[in-house]
Amino acid sequence: MQTLRISTIAAALLLAGSAYAQQQTCFPSKHGPNDQVGNLNYVTPEKTLAATRLVTKGKAYRLGIETNKDTPAFPPRTFSVIILQPGQVHGSSLGPTKTTYNDDIINGWVGIGSQVDGLGHIGIDGVYYNCNKAPDFAKADGLTKLGVEHIPAIATKGILLDMAGYLNSEIVKEGTAFNRAEIEGAMKRQGVKTIERGDIVLFHTGWTKLIGKDNKRYGSGEPGLGVEGARYLAERGVAAVGADTWGVEVIPFEKNAGVFEVHQILIPMNGIYILENMETAEMVKDQAWEFLFTLGPSRITGSVQAIINPIAIK
Amino acid sequence: MQTLRISTIAAALLLAGSAYAQQQTCFPSKHGPNDQVGNLNYVTPEKTLAATRLVTKGKAYRLGIETNKDTPAFPPRTFSVIILQPGQVHGSSLGPTKTTYNDDIINGWVGIGSQVDGLGHIGIDGVYYNCNKAPDFAKADGLTKLGVEHIPAIATKGILLDMAGYLNSEIVKEGTAFNRAEIEGAMKRQGVKTIERGDIVLFHTGWTKLIGKDNKRYGSGEPGLGVEGARYLAERGVAAVGADTWGVEVIPFEKNAGVFEVHQILIPMNGIYILENMETAEMVKDQAWEFLFTLGPSRITGSVQAIINPIAIK
Amino acid sequence: MQTLRISTIAAALLLAGSAYAQQQTCFPSKHGPNDQVGNLNYVTPEKTLAATRLVTKGKAYRLGIETNKDTPAFPPRTFSVIILQPGQVHGSSLGPTKTTYNDDIINGWVGIGSQVDGLGHIGIDGVYYNCNKAPDFAKADGLTKLGVEHIPAIATKGILLDMAGYLNSEIVKEGTAFNRAEIEGAMKRQGVKTIERGDIVLFHTGWTKLIGKDNKRYGSGEPGLGVEGARYLAERGVAAVGADTWGVEVIPFEKNAGVFEVHQILIPMNGIYILENMETAEMVKDQAWEFLFTLGPSRITGSVQAIINPIAIK
Amino acid sequence: MQTLRISTIAAALLLAGSAYAQQQTCFPSKHGPNDQVGNLNYVTPEKTLAATRLVTKGKAYRLGIETNKDTPAFPPRTFSVIILQPGQVHGSSLGPTKTTYNDDIINGWVGIGSQVDGLGHIGIDGVYYNCNKAPDFAKADGLTKLGVEHIPAIATKGILLDMAGYLNSEIVKEGTAFNRAEIEGAMKRQGVKTIERGDIVLFHTGWTKLIGKDNKRYGSGEPGLGVEGARYLAERGVAAVGADTWGVEVIPFEKNAGVFEVHQILIPMNGIYILENMETAEMVKDQAWEFLFTLGPSRITGSVQAIINPIAIK
Repeated sequence: MQTLRISTIAAALLLAGSAYAQQQTCFPSKHGPNDQVGNLNYVTPEKTLAATRLVTKGKAYRLGIETNKDTPAFPPRTFSVIILQPGQVHGSSLGPTKTTYNDDIINGWVGIGSQVDGLGHIGIDGVYYNCNKAPDFAKADGLTKLGVEHIPAIATKGILLDMAGYLNSEIVKEGTAFNRAEIEGAMKRQGVKTIERGDIVLFHTGWTKLIGKDNKRYGSGEPGLGVEGARYLAERGVAAVGADTWGVEVIPFEKNAGVFEVHQILIPMNGIYILENMETAEMVKDQAWEFLFTLGPSRITGSVQAIINPIAIK
Repeated sequence: MQTLRISTIAAALLLAGSAYAQQQTCFPSKHGPNDQVGNLNYVTPEKTLAATRLVTKGKAYRLGIETNKDTPAFPPRTFSVIILQPGQVHGSSLGPTKTTYNDDIINGWVGIGSQVDGLGHIGIDGVYYNCNKAPDFAKADGLTKLGVEHIPAIATKGILLDMAGYLNSEIVKEGTAFNRAEIEGAMKRQGVKTIERGDIVLFHTGWTKLIGKDNKRYGSGEPGLGVEGARYLAERGVAAVGADTWGVEVIPFEKNAGVFEVHQILIPMNGIYILENMETAEMVKDQAWEFLFTLGPSRITGSVQAIINPIAIK
Repeated sequence: MQTLRISTIAAALLLAGSAYAQQQTCFPSKHGPNDQVGNLNYVTPEKTLAATRLVTKGKAYRLGIETNKDTPAFPPRTFSVIILQPGQVHGSSLGPTKTTYNDDIINGWVGIGSQVDGLGHIGIDGVYYNCNKAPDFAKADGLTKLGVEHIPAIATKGILLDMAGYLNSEIVKEGTAFNRAEIEGAMKRQGVKTIERGDIVLFHTGWTKLIGKDNKRYGSGEPGLGVEGARYLAERGVAAVGADTWGVEVIPFEKNAGVFEVHQILIPMNGIYILENMETAEMVKDQAWEFLFTLGPSRITGSVQAIINPIAIK
Repeated sequence: MQTLRISTIAAALLLAGSAYAQQQTCFPSKHGPNDQVGNLNYVTPEKTLAATRLVTKGKAYRLGIETNKDTPAFPPRTFSVIILQPGQVHGSSLGPTKTTYNDDIINGWVGIGSQVDGLGHIGIDGVYYNCNKAPDFAKADGLTKLGVEHIPAIATKGILLDMAGYLNSEIVKEGTAFNRAEIEGAMKRQGVKTIERGDIVLFHTGWTKLIGKDNKRYGSGEPGLGVEGARYLAERGVAAVGADTWGVEVIPFEKNAGVFEVHQILIPMNGIYILENMETAEMVKDQAWEFLFTLGPSRITGSVQAIINPIAIK
């Protein structure tokens, strides 16, 4: 397990002074006081049906990268898988047809590789999505609210914004913030007309190309969504925002931005999911800009995140 | 973690004598000597495109059940999730906007709850799909072949066969085998005309209704696919077979059948994936018989199985 | 894993009002500002040498109980062990002499079964032994101070107090507090003259006899050390206090006592270790009241507790 | 976790041809057909009592090294510890005295750092100590025989042989075998007269000095016990053999020796425990050659090995 360099983050932490006076810490959801699923409420059957009509070629893409002990991860996250053959010691097998089997065990932090950040992941001073306070739901053996098991079936319109193409760079430089101007610029370049309620927006930056080649740079920063851009997407009512980076959010953080403030704007303040380490390179090559996006995260009761592999279909 | 009762299985193991003389243990894949993904090769863009046209209402279903320490599981599988707040001991938070976060760790066997059995799961006397021998690829820290990370994006036609409806039973009795007659009978009843190459067939039996109510019965047996039925589906060229049971296969095993011989017919002999504990009750209620089935299992390098939550769209 | 009933504890938590006004939260160690090992400083070579002279019969006792998934434990602690045979799939072995081997993996909370509570285990409002503040040393991947790896070799005088015998009860009733009167009474009955600096005092109550027989009662309370008794032992300068109970401390807590206040008096306020679930029945039978006590806890870097099995020699 | 270089081992595996024709694979124990503890049967109260009389200074030594993610280990072993504060999210504490606590979880292979190899660790073609066959006792969730929980209290005479001093080398070269001549030579140099039944023999080689400095060399080989030396110690009836190396046994293996054949001679053939990574440097400095050795391994039910920290007292 390679650990990300957080020196940059730490530096940002010390220097940053947020221009955004965050006096309000509880943001009641617009989806009602008992809501646990945020903007996925916007994904209606009409929305899903329309998204299936975006499919014109039938090409399906898997957006997940691999998760293993060498995948660069936010410290102190570690991961291992164990393979064993229960009841088959020294060559024994089961029954007359000699059945043998491999079984597997995972010992690992969930936030490694491609992942969805559930609504219980990020808070503001201990207050999470829809005014849920951490001591009330964050139990050591599982969240009692906002767990990933509550996430409904996701099948909606996905939009891929090729920021690498827009910025004419194979790998967009770390610290490059995507705000309204950049988002609309990329949309215009690609002919994407609108971002609507319940859409899922993915940014392509080329950043995952660094994995296994320059893990140190990969983890020390990243291009990504800025504070104003996050508010812009929140106003559009998107259901989720993703990128081919480990944190979606621009790092080093923007001047005057808080530490992971974009995460705060998206998750606790607006009920928008974050999709990290999405593999989008082949879709860019195919110019698959608008498509059917489907995701069913593993329903592990009380989990905060999930290791995912969404399927995009164009 | 409740453990399944395997007394029935153990009894079957001792009594069964397989009529099927399994002299041949290596079954070269029809997809070529290097193939690692089996009948998912049949899922072409044309197939995917056609499947998206089955969507008429836009209703999306999540097929996963929850996985947790109480989910009944094949022994000695156990599961736990741990929630913690790294770097936030005693109320500290990150930076000026006071970011806080929950993180999660999984310690658990993968084969609990809804799961896909990858092609490295089941073998015949130590020989797995496409003649891969266990000592060559089943390393203690991950499969070096046939791991779940190789599974391509899955988006194809799904077919749901309501065996409970066909047999006029809320919960089909354990030991009830689904063979050609039952499969074709259910198809006819529902107006399903054909099962084709690359399709995914799911059986609804009502069995998951026992979870949390009668875990002992749930794990002691199950209705499911029989040996002849497995061969029938293999001949059709299906990509995967699933059910709302923990093992898809009929238990007690049929007379003359081996221990998990249906698993052997599907996985090592034919490259067909198995999908266990699929939640199909709501689809039955909606008569969603033919639909777009999508699945992207977590790409954990070298894993045998994956905890899944496929999305079906009608 | 059976979880302890904490309803009693929770009730105590709600009702208790501490008579002890705990305004002071930082208790500098008498062993110096950099000390990490507490009263084990009192175990000098002279002390160790004298303790070896207590051995008259050469009988050695193991004080550890077994730790496994069924050992009753404080919630949400769980435990599992995994056995596998790496590189020996399907009957292969290593080299000409056909070496085979079993290997094992632990996935579990440390605080299960017999355990030592290290000086980093218990704090007062986030302040731990020797004024160490939790955010400064309690990192998610290991304590950077006060970890069990710092504990020196332990070989000192042990004193066993047979509270069951003193109170004429096979199993001392839960809620029975051991304070100065009871401690001195038991000493007198046994002919134990003094408790001195660096001694380790163990209480026998018969409580572990409940394990596997009445786990519910076992975990719902326990007899044990009271607040005044803890202060008395602290004044004597003992190095550790143990018992054949899961928490050493009397539960329900004494009237006016805080939640686990005895733990606070011993660990952060006085640098005294706690030894839980010590199996002392055979020693009582042998009247092994004063003896050589040895313990070397596993030196897992940054660990809070250790699963232990001390050796007492009489 | 640094993994040991096993290229040397692999090479030995391919080239070695054992002169020792191992036709016999089942070695009934001299301690009776039901024995599970081997030569620890030789540790009688008389033996223990005599060992306590070796203590002349009262100096106690901890023999354990630290176990953590960076400790070099035999592949694919990995290790991690997790620290968390259950029920104390965002600064909450328990009750009026504001109790806070750290708790810890271990996810790791047991065979890392200082460890005892139990009698269920090593076999000859699937047959273990006292003719126990692996399929009969090596269950995936714990050994049902020969587990570490059966090990009795260990308190006996320890003998430290300073091979580095004898060979006039700060760090004895890898591949240096200790056989009868070397053992007796070192004994003579130190004035150690006899090795007796129930003794524990430790070799000091200086090898642990490489940890953290040259992990590659540390894991690629080691000086250690040879085949003839192992038989010599077995004839003496020792209870355990240890060293300040990761495997005790000489590597590269001797010409004509099998892969870990010394392990086979000691454990399955003679019921002698192996103690790895024993920290003996300070004892050598103090010339603590004969001493009281005590060890109580954690009694984890069904475990194969234990992470240990024996206490030696001189």
